[in-house]
This record gives sequence, structure tokens and C-alpha cells, in this order.
Amino acid sequence: MKLKVRDLKFSAGRPVCMINEKTAEVMSLHVGERMMIKKKRSLVIAVIDIISGVLKKNEIAVSNEVMQSLNLRNKSSVEVGIALNPPSIDLIKKKMRGERLEKEEIKEIIDDISNNALTEAEVAFFIAAVYTRDMNLKELRNLIKSMVETGSRLRLRGRVVDKHCIGGIAGNRTTPIIVSICAANGLVMPKTSSRAITSAAGTADVIETLAKVDFSVRKIKKIIRKTNACFVWGGSLGLAPVDDKIIRIGKIIKVDSTAQLLASILSKKISVDSKYILIDIPYGKSAKVTKLRARILGGRFLKLGKEFGLKIEVVLTDGSQPIGKGVGPVLEMMDILDILRREGGPKDLEDKSLMLAGKLLEMTGKAKKGKGLELASQTLESGKAYEKFKQIVKAQKGRIRELVPGKQSYTLHAKRKIRIKQLSNKMINTIARQAGSPEDKGAGVYIYKKVGQEVKKGEKILTIYAESQEKLEYAKRFLHKNLKETLGV
Amino acid sequence: MKLKVRDLKFSAGRPVCMINEKTAEVMSLHVGERMMIKKKRSLVIAVIDIISGVLKKNEIAVSNEVMQSLNLRNKSSVEVGIALNPPSIDLIKKKMRGERLEKEEIKEIIDDISNNALTEAEVAFFIAAVYTRDMNLKELRNLIKSMVETGSRLRLRGRVVDKHCIGGIAGNRTTPIIVSICAANGLVMPKTSSRAITSAAGTADVIETLAKVDFSVRKIKKIIRKTNACFVWGGSLGLAPVDDKIIRIGKIIKVDSTAQLLASILSKKISVDSKYILIDIPYGKSAKVTKLRARILGGRFLKLGKEFGLKIEVVLTDGSQPIGKGVGPVLEMMDILDILRREGGPKDLEDKSLMLAGKLLEMTGKAKKGKGLELASQTLESGKAYEKFKQIVKAQKGRIRELVPGKQSYTLHAKRKIRIKQLSNKMINTIARQAGSPEDKGAGVYIYKKVGQEVKKGEKILTIYAESQEKLEYAKRFLHKNLKETLGV
Repeated sequence: MKLKVRDLKFSAGRPVCMINEKTAEVMSLHVGERMMIKKKRSLVIAVIDIISGVLKKNEIAVSNEVMQSLNLRNKSSVEVGIALNPPSIDLIKKKMRGERLEKEEIKEIIDDISNNALTEAEVAFFIAAVYTRDMNLKELRNLIKSMVETGSRLRLRGRVVDKHCIGGIAGNRTTPIIVSICAANGLVMPKTSSRAITSAAGTADVIETLAKVDFSVRKIKKIIRKTNACFVWGGSLGLAPVDDKIIRIGKIIKVDSTAQLLASILSKKISVDSKYILIDIPYGKSAKVTKLRARILGGRFLKLGKEFGLKIEVVLTDGSQPIGKGVGPVLEMMDILDILRREGGPKDLEDKSLMLAGKLLEMTGKAKKGKGLELASQTLESGKAYEKFKQIVKAQKGRIRELVPGKQSYTLHAKRKIRIKQLSNKMINTIARQAGSPEDKGAGVYIYKKVGQEVKKGEKILTIYAESQEKLEYAKRFLHKNLKETLGV
Repeated sequence: MKLKVRDLKFSAGRPVCMINEKTAEVMSLHVGERMMIKKKRSLVIAVIDIISGVLKKNEIAVSNEVMQSLNLRNKSSVEVGIALNPPSIDLIKKKMRGERLEKEEIKEIIDDISNNALTEAEVAFFIAAVYTRDMNLKELRNLIKSMVETGSRLRLRGRVVDKHCIGGIAGNRTTPIIVSICAANGLVMPKTSSRAITSAAGTADVIETLAKVDFSVRKIKKIIRKTNACFVWGGSLGLAPVDDKIIRIGKIIKVDSTAQLLASILSKKISVDSKYILIDIPYGKSAKVTKLRARILGGRFLKLGKEFGLKIEVVLTDGSQPIGKGVGPVLEMMDILDILRREGGPKDLEDKSLMLAGKLLEMTGKAKKGKGLELASQTLESGKAYEKFKQIVKAQKGRIRELVPGKQSYTLHAKRKIRIKQLSNKMINTIARQAGSPEDKGAGVYIYKKVGQEVKKGEKILTIYAESQEKLEYAKRFLHKNLKETLGV
């Protein structure tokens, strides 16, 4: 059946189509069922909403997600048909029962997620199944392969390096500093990041305060040829795009299984052709993992690395409290700029960045064993790292500008002399998210004091920034309700 | 903030709202976030779509689901605000980790599902968590209590009885026959059924071919006062309404955990005040459960029954193949009418219905031990059961009329002399669903031969009925692809 597209310009975050109730009747389709929408050789599977006004019988309205992936315009003609429930649903159920999935079965699920043939709820079932049943090494290898195959790949020359932090630590924005130092020393570092998963902001969210992060593979290559590096959003690059879809839905419940974590990270690294990879696993009380789980996870990274012929090193770092002072896109970038310009900035963030950059310089032979940290410090101190940073920002169509945090703010002062006993990453991240981070760039938390420090009566402990009064109120209420868990006082 | 409702008359199967992109910007809201929509004292949480045309800045369009639950009209004014991520998300995650949930925690999740505060994907995570981690007796008791509390309750006089089949068997529509026999013998039987979960049709889908199934509690009571019984859809009654929401999403992946099954059945029975409950658990090769699991399940029913002070009996029945000949709403009702009118009809369906009705008559003292079957047979034979059936149908605003299966059909003939080795419930149900059942009332499968019977060359084995040519083709293709698994030949 052919229908004419009526562009209602609506976004639903997933492929949705609306058809007139008469059309639904003729095709005997019902709300929540799936429809296949074809334009030339492209195909999207969309969930059906039924509308009795607005649209005529021969019309269809599709969400922007469908408009884009089929390259449609108002009045475009599309071919529609009933989409069957995909067989991958049974495979997801198989995994839920605790059975192992074969190579082709994993491929089928991943292909269906990639083609939007599964609804959010179905992907949620898959994520839950993998979370509760885990995957063995063979399943993981096949998962990663399938994820890489659904996307494009960067093919790069030179020593391609990468670093990845498993996340969970508030602030902790080492990437822009490390990339600047490594690239200034001649390493090729095509850093792709996802947006925030469980934390208040992802590297892509932070970079976006100054530059674009959204480029085609062709443009990325151009940026790397010019600057040796980039910091871009992985999703827009089309590298293992399935990963971003899974992350988006996993984010709802902040679930991040070991298997999903490994697959997510390695599929991206393989897609950008990285050969030397440094994995940062912060552990501790309010981190994602305990020291024991950090070790096990590290071991699985090394095993999988071998399977794919990668040189992987794993560093376990202290993840007991936030790193840096700002938490949220703008606030984090302000810390980074301070460090790169040598105008102060948080010492813990600087030290960690230098340590990790030093490791990468050693892994690739740019520095001798034991001399990486020194080379990294020189690169930062001399201003070469900042020069490189500016160069990359410019190549990514951005410019260095003064950043301003959210216009609404609330500062927590000490009511008496206290000592900060803890700073929960989870709570700080949640407060920043309640305040609107990462979507609202200026939203977040600025931390004045770290664990062990004394705060005098009337001194500032932290400030919450938000773009709207309503979100500020939520964050503030949450902070006061969870003061004990946040600060330990 | 106040917005004016613009009725676009669209159904999305869940609460969805559309706001203009300018409004979204002012409120700093994004696609996929949640919005609280208030009208007087009622409140709905809806997922946000953003639209740049069609709606003005001060307008909001909401799906029919929201229009109904807030009782809105075009140009109604509503109060909107940002809805926080509900804390029950963390509780769902807790269950996913395999931890036990406390009474208040279960209540919080159930209340949020009930208030539409959770999205489909979030409910999917809850279903998956319960499926993979199971619940202990205490959690189950609390789950059932919470489910009952979210709904209204019928308060009825007399000996209130109920029977329930755990489902999974194609055809097997004993309920209308049993209810007619029991009610004709003076038992009160407020039978509420859900729509199809994993099978091709539920009792509510089947009854709908002749009568309405959709009544308020007040009207139900009137029907029962008049006829002693009813067969209605549980969802419309507002009895443990959460159950239907969970079932709707579980249905996506055809997941039906033991815990969910027990909670679903017992919450409904407790809500309608049943004291005597007969549970039918069919077991066998293509049934939902093996004989062993049937026994375990039966045991859990008895235990929970004691907790709630109910008189429960469990019967394990042969579930190795479909019961009756028709599978799908219209086709099943045709079988039932044949039996009630004593005009033939499938013998296996008649025998099973009489056996179960007999048990209920004995449990309640209407017949002496061992004499229930006899009384049930007399009631059917004498035409009293059919009289009662007609009376209930009439009270439910229906009438007995000639039924016609779907206009598109395909008959499978034997290509040579064969013997039917098996008849897979799963396959028959799937074929019926592919053909459009239960939404398309006339769609389904009619079975001419049962397991062990010989079919001569050219004789009919089964007929698929559908309302659309496209769905018929799907079902036909599926049948031929899975002939071996369906018939064993």
C-alpha cells in the first residue's frame, strides 16, 4: 500500500508513525503493532499510533527519526506494509531463560535493534536478560563482532591509541586533557565517546559546550589528518551504532551489565581501529565497582583484547569520590580549561590526566618505561597541550569562549564547623541530573571541598546550578533529603 | 504552567503528550522525558513527544489514553509540570540484582505502574527482573496485596466460586460452559478474564463476539444479581488493574513468570471476593508447563490460598494438544454454541467442561462427592445451561447471532494418507495470531483432526481464517515453514 507523508515535524525518540483510523481498519492494524515503511531501498519499522483527525486516509505522519533515516520530505510517497513480530523476540526470551546464544542468534538480535525492528520494551528485555544471565567469552566475542559489523569503521594510519574509563565517577573529565597531550606527541587518538550513561555528563556532552561533536566518518578523518586527534560523539559516527541504542534504553534504569560494558567499549575501539588501549577502572565505595569486581573486569578486558589482537592495559584507580570540582558539561569544561591554560584548576584532575597520558606514551614507545609522566607534564606545562586542544576544537567547528553555568543556583553552606566524611559519586551525579545535566549544559554541581577537608561555619560546600527554577528545586530537595548519604555529615 | 488541550484524537496505547518545541525549550524538557499532567485532582504521567508544527506554544495534545483518564475535551485547560524519575526505578534495579523487595518497595512499584508513572521499557525491566529472579512467598503475598489495593473490589453475597486455567492450550474455551452450568445451579460466579496473553484468544476476546465484556463494577453487580454470573473483561472492571498493564507488556515477549502468573490470577480472584477457586493446570509437551512444574505451581497456589483464607483446589489436566476445534474468538464461540445447544461440538471440550463444573459443584456442596459430573451433565443436557448462557449474554447487552469466520481462508489438505503425530499448541496459537487473532475476531485456525487420527489423501487437516489477505499469507507461510513442528508429519 502506498501512503503520502504528511510532515507533522514531531520527535518521539524512536520510530513512530501515525495513520488514520480508516487506513488502520483497511489494513487491520492496531495501536502498538508495527508497520514497515519503505522508501526506495531503505526500510524502517515503526510502532503505530492511530489518529482520527488531522491525517487523511491516504496520509501517514512519521516521527523525525523516520523522516531522517528514510530521507523523507513532506508529500513523499512511501510503501507501507505489516511488519511481523521479528523472530529475535524468541531469542531474547531464550537468553532470559538463561540459555546461551549462538553466533547467528546474537547477530539476529543486534541486526534487529540496529534496524529499529524492536521496540524499547523489547530492547529492555534484552538488556535485562544480559544483565541477569551474563554472557560467556564466546557470546561476548560474537556480540562485539555483530556490533562492529552493523556500523562503519575508521581506517587510520599511525599508532592509533585510545583510553577509556568505565565511568561512574562524577567529574573525572580526563579525556580532553589526555587526548591533547597524546596528540601533541604525535599519537593518533580518534576518541569517540558516548553521552552520559549513569553519570551527570559524558565527554561528548562536555565537549559540546565549545565545539561540535557530530561528524561523518569522512569529516572525522579530515579532522584527524589535521590534528592527529578528535573528541567526538560515537553515535553520530555510525560506529557500532547499536551500542548507542542499547545505552539509551539501559540508561532508563541505569543498568550497565559487565557484558554490556565490555561489548560497548570494545566495539567502539575496534570500529575506530585502535591498537593500543588503556582502560581506567575506578573502584571504591560509591564507584561503579568494588576493587574485586574491578580486577575481574580488568581480566575480562585483557582476555577479550587478546581475542581481537589488541594491546590493552588496565589501570585500577581510586573512585571513592568525584574527581575535579565541576560536575556537569559547562562546569567540567571550566575545570579543563583552567588546567590546560595553567590557570589553576583542580589538582586531582590534573594528576590523574597526567598519569594516564604518561601510560599511553609509554605503551606506544613515545616515552621510555618510567618516563611517561615526565613527558606528559612537560607537554602540559609548555602550553603544547593547550595549543593542540585549541587546534582540535577549531577543527571541530568550535572556539574557545567564556562559559557560564546555569542562571539558577543554590549554594549549600556549612551550618557549623564540619569535616567532609564522604562525597558520594552516585548522589552528586543524581543531584546534577535532577538539576538538568547533561541536557541542560549549564546545569550541575560545583564542589568546593573534598573528603577529609574541614569546612568552617558559613563556608561553601557545594553549589547546584540549573537552567530552570523547577529543576533547581528538585535537585535542592533531593540534596537535603540525602545530605547524610551525599556528604556523610 | 497551564496549557490548553488540542484534541488530535490519537491513540498510542500508553500516555503520550505532544508539546510545541518552544514550550519544551521554556520548560527545558526533552523527548522521552516525562511530564505530569493535572486536571483537578487527577494526574497522569505522560512521555513527551516534541512537535514543531501543528501545535501552538500554549497547546498540548495528549493521546486518547490521557484524554480518557483525565476526562478531557478539546480546549480543556490542564496544569503541567516536570515529572521526576520515580524512585521505583531504583527498586526495580534492586530486584534485577537479585535482592528481595520489602512490602513498601513492592507497593511503590505497583503504585507507579498503576499511575502510569513508569514507561513500557521500565515495566519491561520489572517483568524481566521478576522472571529471572523469581519471588518468595512473602514477596508474592505483598505483590498480590498491592495489586488488589490499586483496584476496586466486588462485594458479593452467596457462594462465590471461580475457576481459572493457567492457559497456553489452543482452543480450550471451557469457561462459558462451566459458568453457565454453575450459575444454573445457584452458584455465584463473577468470572473475569484477561484478554489473550500467550494464546490465540482469551475468554474476554471470545465472549466479545456475542456480548459486551466491558462494564463498571456497579453494572457487573446488577448483571450478577440478575443471572448469578457474568463473563467480563477484568481490565475494564478496575479490579487489580495493574495486572492488565503488566500482562500487556509481558505479552510482547510472551513472558509469563511463575510469580507473575500466581499474582495475576490470585489478585483477580481476591478482588472479586471468590472463596472457592478451582485451578486448571494443563501440562504436557506443548503446554506451558511440564507435569513436574505443574505440581510445583499447584503447591504454590495452595500455599498462597491458605495465606489469603481461600478454598483452592488444583486439577492437573492433559495439555498435550488443543482442546476443541476452533482456535480464535469466533471459531471458539462457534464450538461453544454447538455444545450448549446440543448440536454436536467437540467432545473433548464438552467432557473437560463437565468435569471441571462437576468439581465446583462438589467443592461448594451443590453435589455430593462423586456426583458433580452427573449434575453438570444433566444441567447441560436439559438445556438449562444454554438458557443460563443466553440470559447472561442478554444481561451483557449481547444476543445470540450467527457467527462467520474471517473472509479470507486457506485449507491444508493431506497430500497422502497420514496419521497426525502431534498438534502443537504453541504452533497453532502462533498461526492463529499471525492470522490476526485475537484482534481480528474472525481470524484463527479450525482443526479437523486430532492427534492419533488418520487423514486420507485429500482430506482436510486444518483451515486458517483471516480478515486480511496479507495476514493470511503470513500465517500460511508460517504454517508451511513449521509443518513438522505443528503436526509432527
